[in-house]
Amino acid sequence: MHTDLVAALDIGGTKIAGALVDGHGRIQARAQRATPAREDGDTVMGAVEAVLAELTAAPLWGRATAVGIGSAGPVDASAGTVSPVNVPGWRDYPLVRRVRDAAGGLPVELIGDGVAITAAEHWQGAARGHDNALCMVVSTGVGGGLVLGGRLHPGPTGNSGHIGHISVDLDGDPCPCGARGCVERIASGPNIARRALDAGWRPGPDGDTSAAAVAAAARSGDPVAVASFERAAQALAAGIAATATLVEIDIAVVGGGVAKAGEVLFAPLRRALTDYATLSFVQRLAVVPAQMGTDAGLVGAAAAALSRTASVTAAHV
Amino acid sequence: MHTDLVAALDIGGTKIAGALVDGHGRIQARAQRATPAREDGDTVMGAVEAVLAELTAAPLWGRATAVGIGSAGPVDASAGTVSPVNVPGWRDYPLVRRVRDAAGGLPVELIGDGVAITAAEHWQGAARGHDNALCMVVSTGVGGGLVLGGRLHPGPTGNSGHIGHISVDLDGDPCPCGARGCVERIASGPNIARRALDAGWRPGPDGDTSAAAVAAAARSGDPVAVASFERAAQALAAGIAATATLVEIDIAVVGGGVAKAGEVLFAPLRRALTDYATLSFVQRLAVVPAQMGTDAGLVGAAAAALSRTASVTAAHV
Repeated sequence: MHTDLVAALDIGGTKIAGALVDGHGRIQARAQRATPAREDGDTVMGAVEAVLAELTAAPLWGRATAVGIGSAGPVDASAGTVSPVNVPGWRDYPLVRRVRDAAGGLPVELIGDGVAITAAEHWQGAARGHDNALCMVVSTGVGGGLVLGGRLHPGPTGNSGHIGHISVDLDGDPCPCGARGCVERIASGPNIARRALDAGWRPGPDGDTSAAAVAAAARSGDPVAVASFERAAQALAAGIAATATLVEIDIAVVGGGVAKAGEVLFAPLRRALTDYATLSFVQRLAVVPAQMGTDAGLVGAAAAALSRTASVTAAHV
Repeated sequence: MHTDLVAALDIGGTKIAGALVDGHGRIQARAQRATPAREDGDTVMGAVEAVLAELTAAPLWGRATAVGIGSAGPVDASAGTVSPVNVPGWRDYPLVRRVRDAAGGLPVELIGDGVAITAAEHWQGAARGHDNALCMVVSTGVGGGLVLGGRLHPGPTGNSGHIGHISVDLDGDPCPCGARGCVERIASGPNIARRALDAGWRPGPDGDTSAAAVAAAARSGDPVAVASFERAAQALAAGIAATATLVEIDIAVVGGGVAKAGEVLFAPLRRALTDYATLSFVQRLAVVPAQMGTDAGLVGAAAAALSRTASVTAAHV
């Protein structure tokens, strides 16, 4: 199987990346387009098709055996459709069928982007060797995915591990999803920045009000900036502890732009975890930074496609 | 396999029940002792052994092929030990080895009591036919278990589905487990009663201050009693929605003494669920009452033992 190639697509609200990936997770060819996220659905699909056209024109395409897609969610893997929050032109959009048509009929595997990141971390990153893991992305939003019993657990519709939208503060601030006090509503980058600004933190001369700027202020000892990261860490800890208590994970891998804050986030996160992960079977839970870089979505989509290929092969044996 | 018998033990803080159960889940013999919960570990084990002695003396014992144990938690299925909160004499107590010795060397399967209830509801109750389900017990405590991908999901240590101790109110009241705002801290029977009393509800002439009495008051329209159940429902809804969002369950089965309140609990629970289960893939989530009665723990422990037997058989084919 290690000589197989698969095509991978990583579809987000900003860019659509594609690659041919080998059985070792090495990227052998790439293509990319900006996501025309505000355009109609067929225009967005046109960008996907342009990426696929580059890949199918590559000399290695003939060795590709499947296509893996990691898409911004929600997705519906059972129906083969996607409805990304940030791509309003796609609602129940039949992405799997359209990609299959554009890829010469190859089998297509669809998972959510959080699940894709998880597949990558489990295959080659910080969750390698762990049979029960939660992998998260904390950036503009908060997403995630699960490995249970040694296998990726996408769930029936490919959305499992959606930790950003579990409520850890049932009377808390309204979240755009419709609930209250979601992990994302407290711990995402924009919410870290908003909370610091609301509490009186002011950006430097460059006017940068990003979470990264708040992290820099926290590193310099600004108590308001520190407090905003501590609150984010508390919400992440409650969500991670809830996940561990529900499905017995032994490691939580945290990546994404906000995780780049390093110990500004991870130190209070580890402390808060001891407050919420209290039962005996979750007390050894580790929290570590992600290891995969910006290609995690592509590598994870490839992993999903490769595991499908392996299944298909096994079924034919 | 349907002619097989297994022995089942349901070990709680009040009683230790045992049974011989056939492949249809029918109980063919029973034994029971009170749990000497405040005594030392060997005394508690003596009660378990007395139950087993009755079962091994039964004429049907010779057909028993395995023993299933559902125990108050936490348990550690990987180590074969239990540390029930309400049985202080048992800490990392080697229950599996002791039961195996008392049962003539039969294979022993250990799961938590919430997982056992779940096995029973999935086999013969309200979760039958559902591939992804959460089953809960809401009574003195709040416990649960998960079915994922069509199979019971005990997790590595047999504790998965511990929904009572996920925090849905990260700044909330301290929980005896050490965390804050746990589902159990808000939704258990004693907490429903405490909250009603704190808000001015007073029991009738019989002095009954149980959650059942609060439920009766709520049915008569007492607004304080109604509010206490609504708050419990809100916490349960946040916890159920979190579970669905994390692992894509499509049904939540709620049993236990508090669930006997009926629509006093289920009506606000269904309403609150629409507030917290917001993402597309969890919006069809159903909440229903449990169907199994007081034998659920025994039937579920038997199900776990039978599935082990089936696995062993399959492995020998």
